[in-house]
Amino acid sequence: MVSKLVNFLLGHNLENDALKDEKYNVFWGLPILSSDAISSVAYAGEEILWILVGVIGVASYKYMFYAALCIVFLMFLLVFSYRQTIDTYPNGGGSYIVAKDNLGTIPGLIAGSALSIDYTLTVAVSTCAGTAAITSALPFLLKYKVSITVILIILMTIGNLRGVRESSRLFGIPTYLFILSIGFMIVTGIVKVHFLGFTPHPLYSVPEATGSISIILFLKAFSSGCTALTGIEAVSNGIPSFKEPSQKNAKIVLILLGTVVLFIFGGLSYLTTLYHAVPNSANTLISQIAIQIFGHNIVYYIIQCTTAIILIMAANTAFAGFPLLLALIAKDGFAPRQFAKRGHRLSFSNGIIFLCIMSCTLVIVFHGETHLLIPLYAVGVFISFTLSQTGMFCRWIKQKSPYWRHKAFVNGLGALVTFITVLIIGITKFYHGAWIIFVLIPSIVFIKTRVKKHYNTVAAQLKLNVDQRPKVINFEEQKRYAIVPIDTLNKSFLKALNYARTISNNIIVFHISVDKDATEKLKKKWDEYNIGIPLVIKESPYRALIHPLVKFIKSEEYAAGPNDTVTVVIPQFVVSKWWGNILHNQTSLFIKGMLIKERNIAIVTVPYIIEEE
Amino acid sequence: MVSKLVNFLLGHNLENDALKDEKYNVFWGLPILSSDAISSVAYAGEEILWILVGVIGVASYKYMFYAALCIVFLMFLLVFSYRQTIDTYPNGGGSYIVAKDNLGTIPGLIAGSALSIDYTLTVAVSTCAGTAAITSALPFLLKYKVSITVILIILMTIGNLRGVRESSRLFGIPTYLFILSIGFMIVTGIVKVHFLGFTPHPLYSVPEATGSISIILFLKAFSSGCTALTGIEAVSNGIPSFKEPSQKNAKIVLILLGTVVLFIFGGLSYLTTLYHAVPNSANTLISQIAIQIFGHNIVYYIIQCTTAIILIMAANTAFAGFPLLLALIAKDGFAPRQFAKRGHRLSFSNGIIFLCIMSCTLVIVFHGETHLLIPLYAVGVFISFTLSQTGMFCRWIKQKSPYWRHKAFVNGLGALVTFITVLIIGITKFYHGAWIIFVLIPSIVFIKTRVKKHYNTVAAQLKLNVDQRPKVINFEEQKRYAIVPIDTLNKSFLKALNYARTISNNIIVFHISVDKDATEKLKKKWDEYNIGIPLVIKESPYRALIHPLVKFIKSEEYAAGPNDTVTVVIPQFVVSKWWGNILHNQTSLFIKGMLIKERNIAIVTVPYIIEEE
Repeated sequence: MVSKLVNFLLGHNLENDALKDEKYNVFWGLPILSSDAISSVAYAGEEILWILVGVIGVASYKYMFYAALCIVFLMFLLVFSYRQTIDTYPNGGGSYIVAKDNLGTIPGLIAGSALSIDYTLTVAVSTCAGTAAITSALPFLLKYKVSITVILIILMTIGNLRGVRESSRLFGIPTYLFILSIGFMIVTGIVKVHFLGFTPHPLYSVPEATGSISIILFLKAFSSGCTALTGIEAVSNGIPSFKEPSQKNAKIVLILLGTVVLFIFGGLSYLTTLYHAVPNSANTLISQIAIQIFGHNIVYYIIQCTTAIILIMAANTAFAGFPLLLALIAKDGFAPRQFAKRGHRLSFSNGIIFLCIMSCTLVIVFHGETHLLIPLYAVGVFISFTLSQTGMFCRWIKQKSPYWRHKAFVNGLGALVTFITVLIIGITKFYHGAWIIFVLIPSIVFIKTRVKKHYNTVAAQLKLNVDQRPKVINFEEQKRYAIVPIDTLNKSFLKALNYARTISNNIIVFHISVDKDATEKLKKKWDEYNIGIPLVIKESPYRALIHPLVKFIKSEEYAAGPNDTVTVVIPQFVVSKWWGNILHNQTSLFIKGMLIKERNIAIVTVPYIIEEE
Repeated sequence: MVSKLVNFLLGHNLENDALKDEKYNVFWGLPILSSDAISSVAYAGEEILWILVGVIGVASYKYMFYAALCIVFLMFLLVFSYRQTIDTYPNGGGSYIVAKDNLGTIPGLIAGSALSIDYTLTVAVSTCAGTAAITSALPFLLKYKVSITVILIILMTIGNLRGVRESSRLFGIPTYLFILSIGFMIVTGIVKVHFLGFTPHPLYSVPEATGSISIILFLKAFSSGCTALTGIEAVSNGIPSFKEPSQKNAKIVLILLGTVVLFIFGGLSYLTTLYHAVPNSANTLISQIAIQIFGHNIVYYIIQCTTAIILIMAANTAFAGFPLLLALIAKDGFAPRQFAKRGHRLSFSNGIIFLCIMSCTLVIVFHGETHLLIPLYAVGVFISFTLSQTGMFCRWIKQKSPYWRHKAFVNGLGALVTFITVLIIGITKFYHGAWIIFVLIPSIVFIKTRVKKHYNTVAAQLKLNVDQRPKVINFEEQKRYAIVPIDTLNKSFLKALNYARTISNNIIVFHISVDKDATEKLKKKWDEYNIGIPLVIKESPYRALIHPLVKFIKSEEYAAGPNDTVTVVIPQFVVSKWWGNILHNQTSLFIKGMLIKERNIAIVTVPYIIEEE
């Protein structure tokens, strides 16, 4: 029944060979991998203006334009840097790979941790923001805010578990709708003012200036706007998800992404200046501009609606990127191996589910309030940018391949600028939450190194050389001991006993006495049954179920030598209904769990299946 | 480490033989088993007055006295009825036993379910009321109300898990303190007015009458006051917890309980009339009276404090009663058997933990608001009273033992009166929540019968007759097949293989191919290793781990006859740190879980222990 439900939700299983078909072309790769970057533009301008407008009043629009210019410059620097990365790393050149490859393990793990945190935040923040857009339109849903957000995340999780291609169809369309509707608004807005002579009527008045621009203020505004650049990493991390030629496709998508962001960010910034929109907690910039251009008509609602949807869908970038990243880290042994396994529908199911759990937890703990999470948001991304660019820079310096000076300059400049950005964001947002990142990253790195150490220990101890041969066993002369624990004399026990007799002619039936009356009854029955096999009874005054058995096996009374095998044969009856298991003591499971820690005891489970009508 | 913590919290293990010492004498049995009944008196008068005072004003005091009289009459009827039950059922005569014995299984289960619900409600309601008393005194704690209640329940759970005797010491004292302090207040209050000529100054004025007394109004008041009688059942259900002579001790405790309730309930009702206390949500009746008698001095705070403590401790009656009841039901096969097992310290740990979880859930779901739970409270108890009395009545009628007419009269009257009370409470409180009980009880009874049916099915299928002999097996000629699944060639596999060779000379090594590269690598290594055992490889295109193996075993390719044994030998490496298990796929556990549903396959686990520094 569970498997039927899984099939219904996720679609039927996919064969390994189906993997090739489940990949993006450019047309679907763009919306899937860039919805995060594109959607964050929707609020980046607003974040800049929030910082400025209370202090320098109407002059804000000028400096907002400068800040946006810096951010766009930064973006194109990153786009060109990342194009070099894509060329060099055809199998996915996320910061993790690049930093690990060129700077060493620890920088790689730092980059990986920073990115992991950021992906989780992307899901939480974007979904919360999307829900906020919905609840602003439909205020009666406000009290179900957290539930709605969690349900949205779960729906997205299911969509992604269905597999790569279907998720692109499902999630790609809203990105295009958003681009088109915002594009339409930008063109209409400009035409209306410049060609049709429309005079905008701002909805809110711009506050009076109370101070003048300062470097600190400008840097604060700039670092707030840097949220616009989260998500660019996704493209170069996602190269393996592209159809062949995957590198070329990824590079095209990256350039397209830059162009779209430039167009929308620039256009919105220009419209904001033109229509003098003022940041306001009840009405977003986009909403204010759209109302002035279109009024409260259907076009306005379409724009609001696509904005809301793309904010939710932005989370999908993380659902595409995070499981891939985690799979890479897991393949290197720094995270549990289960994350490197493909599921039913060939997606990395465990990573998707893990992301779902982490982000839902964030949403629930922070009661769906985005503003507490946003300050943490950009630091992580810029740390990973810096490490990745530095790694590329070092690579060119070391390799001295053709054009290395030019390439090193591009990546070196990228590294320098993103590092400065980390410092700016880290300092201006430290007390607003950035400190959490500086605690979290070292912790995650520590855990990852411990995991790796554990895997190394296990691998070293399991390693088998060709010269380590199997034991020479003379099957006919091998001494075999078998112990069959008994609680009551029933058919399940009989089946276990029958099995024991096929593998050994040294059988002992062992009873742990917890209840004297029950033991007496068993003794009597055993004597009646009379099959010539000894029944050993040991008292367990403290009601422990396993200690007396282990003690007995180790004692001299039971003289198995080091070369003899000791097998404990456990009868277990199996009930067909899942709830049936709750009704039984599961003693055999318990015994197995304890015995498995003892060397040189093999544990046999002999199932006896109970039929139920 | 976990076991050290358990020992610290619960004390060291107790031997089976220590059971005799862990019992109550009369002195400790009284406070333990009666704190529920005694504490509920603290608010029963208030509940009556709440119904009356808004309608009939100052005349309420007269009718409150009548209602209290009815309730005291009902109580003594129950005390005498239950004395007969104690005589008849020396091993604990709760409603469940009595109803099952004399009326049949279903009435027994109804009584048991009603009582179980009531015990759970007792814990939730009493603890919430106790917390409310604390938070009224210390208002800054109000916002942690739910957490405080849950912590109190957990502390009580730990206390009870420590075992019977220590819990009586821990929880018995507050009952005596409450009795003494309320007794002191009653005596002082009466002396002050009648002998020292003190004139009370009521804190609140009695509302004007807006109507006159009616039968419906009086019955409502009466049914509200019936909460005073919850908890009487605990004594006769708890006979096995008494020291020998347990029946005599229980009967003494029952009479003492009745006397204490009579004295406190009567005394408080009289004081209420004398001091004209008026129900008020900010100030309890006891608090109003105490302020008038003592002022805001230390005696007042002692009274408030002991009241708060006994309300919390009342929950302990349920912790004493519920696990015993559940153990009885479990012994009869109507509830999971684990509830009938004694734990570390000889208490019925599972029942205690179950009660803790259920009541904490109630508290959390209802946000610690008692008034939503109180209407459900008395119905359950009176249903079980009715069934128990009816059972006793039928017993006397059938047996016609000496004095049967007299005995049948006592119990018959009890049955009739409690049945009428059920009707009164059920009708007057139906819409306030009593309906929930009428839904819950049938559901629980249904589940219990299903559980019993399951146990019966299992028992029937496991039953072994003496004439069903073990198979005749010629050990030397027995054909044994062994399959060793392999993932990678390592030491853990080698150990499993070595074991397989001791039990079989027909070994197949079986590999399920999920990843072609890994399979190729394994094939090459296996050929190098060259030990003359065939490696069977089956593709698993859908990455299923078990299906190909089961299919292979059943196929003709693998021709094990019905008399041959097939053993699957699973290598499992065991890591020493608990978190290590998270890092491995647990494939072997998974294989075991799937294979165990197949008949005629024995599963051997061969542990390989990984050492970690």
